[in-house]
Amino acid sequence: MLGGIYYQPTKFYFGRGMESQVGEEVRKHSPRVLLHYGQKSITRNGLHGKVIRSLDGAGVEVFELGGVEPNPRRDLVYAGIQKCRDEKIDFILAVGGGSVIDSSKAISAGVPYEGDFYDLFEQRAKVEKALKVGVILTLPGSGSESSPGAVISDPERKRKRVCDSPLLLPVFSILNPECTVTVPPFSTACGIVDAISHIFERYFSNTPFVDCSDRICEGLLQTLMKYAPLVMDEPEDYDIRAEIMWACKLAQDTTPGFGRKQDWACHKIAHEISGFYDAAHGAVMGAVYFAWLQWVYPRNMAKLSQLGERVFGAGNGYGPSESALMAIRRFKEFLIALKMPTSLRELGIQDRSAFSELASNAVEFQQSGTVGNYVRLSPQDICELLTSALG
Amino acid sequence: MLGGIYYQPTKFYFGRGMESQVGEEVRKHSPRVLLHYGQKSITRNGLHGKVIRSLDGAGVEVFELGGVEPNPRRDLVYAGIQKCRDEKIDFILAVGGGSVIDSSKAISAGVPYEGDFYDLFEQRAKVEKALKVGVILTLPGSGSESSPGAVISDPERKRKRVCDSPLLLPVFSILNPECTVTVPPFSTACGIVDAISHIFERYFSNTPFVDCSDRICEGLLQTLMKYAPLVMDEPEDYDIRAEIMWACKLAQDTTPGFGRKQDWACHKIAHEISGFYDAAHGAVMGAVYFAWLQWVYPRNMAKLSQLGERVFGAGNGYGPSESALMAIRRFKEFLIALKMPTSLRELGIQDRSAFSELASNAVEFQQSGTVGNYVRLSPQDICELLTSALG
Repeated sequence: MLGGIYYQPTKFYFGRGMESQVGEEVRKHSPRVLLHYGQKSITRNGLHGKVIRSLDGAGVEVFELGGVEPNPRRDLVYAGIQKCRDEKIDFILAVGGGSVIDSSKAISAGVPYEGDFYDLFEQRAKVEKALKVGVILTLPGSGSESSPGAVISDPERKRKRVCDSPLLLPVFSILNPECTVTVPPFSTACGIVDAISHIFERYFSNTPFVDCSDRICEGLLQTLMKYAPLVMDEPEDYDIRAEIMWACKLAQDTTPGFGRKQDWACHKIAHEISGFYDAAHGAVMGAVYFAWLQWVYPRNMAKLSQLGERVFGAGNGYGPSESALMAIRRFKEFLIALKMPTSLRELGIQDRSAFSELASNAVEFQQSGTVGNYVRLSPQDICELLTSALG
Repeated sequence: MLGGIYYQPTKFYFGRGMESQVGEEVRKHSPRVLLHYGQKSITRNGLHGKVIRSLDGAGVEVFELGGVEPNPRRDLVYAGIQKCRDEKIDFILAVGGGSVIDSSKAISAGVPYEGDFYDLFEQRAKVEKALKVGVILTLPGSGSESSPGAVISDPERKRKRVCDSPLLLPVFSILNPECTVTVPPFSTACGIVDAISHIFERYFSNTPFVDCSDRICEGLLQTLMKYAPLVMDEPEDYDIRAEIMWACKLAQDTTPGFGRKQDWACHKIAHEISGFYDAAHGAVMGAVYFAWLQWVYPRNMAKLSQLGERVFGAGNGYGPSESALMAIRRFKEFLIALKMPTSLRELGIQDRSAFSELASNAVEFQQSGTVGNYVRLSPQDICELLTSALG
């Protein structure tokens, strides 16, 4: 087990009606807030009105900026930064899913930064100050409500880039499973697969003596795999939505990955894919991980066997190789049951012409010239992996 | 799953040599610190010197108060409160195990409180202010490094009483497994059994839809049960100590018990026992839980069966009743392997003459007149349970 700092100061309000706390919580930090959100769905389902009433009731002045798209864009972040500067706003309230939260985090880091905020996402500068961000989560999966990371797309260059800083941890996150019952099946499934990918990134590690966090990873996987098919059948069931929402939160906080070298190859690759093709992140993650698990099988089987044995039901009669294959097979069946693609072709990606460029981009900020730790992938490896992921 | 607030802002430094951070961490909060500790062991093993050097290096003025005993006493808390008031100290650094941390928390709440600090432990007043507390942990088990609780004994009245408040959460906790390699076997075992009891208190719950936290509880139990016998064989192994130290921290933080009605009957009973007989808390917990599991078996078997199946290896051929019995049997074997008592008699408690009084005391602050939630225990039930625990 590796040493490190474990720090997750975000205050979580979990449960029915918790969004009514938002006014009071925001008011602790500021009397002026940028309310940042995506599409009209929060107006349709009444959440927007509830939030405004709570903020009004607490005497908070509200400035609005909607229109965040999936794979959130640079452009809107600039608009948000400008608005905060013009109106002297120093608190951002994200109401939405991962894209809205990430866009809010980018604005929060961009306001006090003198240059182009995208410097912070292209490793030309570090976050040294940020406005505070609060969250009302409507779509679980990204874990951005409990993580220090944000991902912003640059559609012109067809890139997605990540920024990580403890300063980007939300000061509070409000999680009411009721707010998620209207999330459509595709988005629900994308969120679940994304959360599973967050666990995989931590689970696949060569660090020895990580039993405690291995068990936690496995428990989260078991929970998500149990409730994923159930939520498809009963999308409006509060209890099912609650288990999923909570597991997605835990999947991306400090606990399951503490004390270990993590992997994150698949995320780096998937960001290139979804940046280039503007494809749904969760759907890409599933297809990339399915290819990656097959890639790993002949190269470093240990953790894959353990996964098969402890999570995917490979029993006593199974050897390491059979357990590993069981994990791969069951993961594929799981994706199919959720109507998630198992190949890039199902996502409309037809050929490998861009793969070489995407592979180079994926290693752009890696000193080693490779991605991943459990298994290291060179650009050449990434091309091969993506070709097999084409299906 | 129940709603609630999840908030654990303590900053944890985990790993080798992390105690060298202490000076800088304390200095963020105050230039004057009360260094609170127990026996001479931290002087003998060199930790005391390291801490002083780090504090000196950061320009922190140090006032010392040693002498905390297991089942920490009221008297020393008064002395600490007086010292902090006299010397205008507003930060307390606990270097030790649960007793030292709890004594520090009591001082921290007592300094700004006008009346007798023990009011806060006998529910005559609530903590409304507290000095900040930092921790260097030398004995894992109590989880006080990650919990909002403290337990202080009143030897005159032979009582132990609990105080819980988010204001008692340490601002930082430094966990270096190296600091624990000299802990003797009995104390090591007491700590592990205490941590297991913290998981049981959360695990045994009738709240439905708590799969996610059930799995986390089970993972922590599996980790502790794996490493407990190993640490007895190899007490100086860093990696083994690390897994135990980390699992003990998680066992008592917000994660494993979130979203559920918890039990805590056994702790209430065990506090009466160890307050009255001045017996080691972890050892009492083991004996009380062994009796309690047997008590629960005919009354509410569900969670006990699940425990047998998922943690204690009851396989496919086992029915619910056999799985439950397996859990009880295996827990007993586990205690014996750790040389922990399975009965109160082994702790020197010879007869039941005090049980009726202890049972009344255990329910003192309970409106329902009972303790526990998974199974409710009346004073009469507690007497019967303790009689069976006598062995």
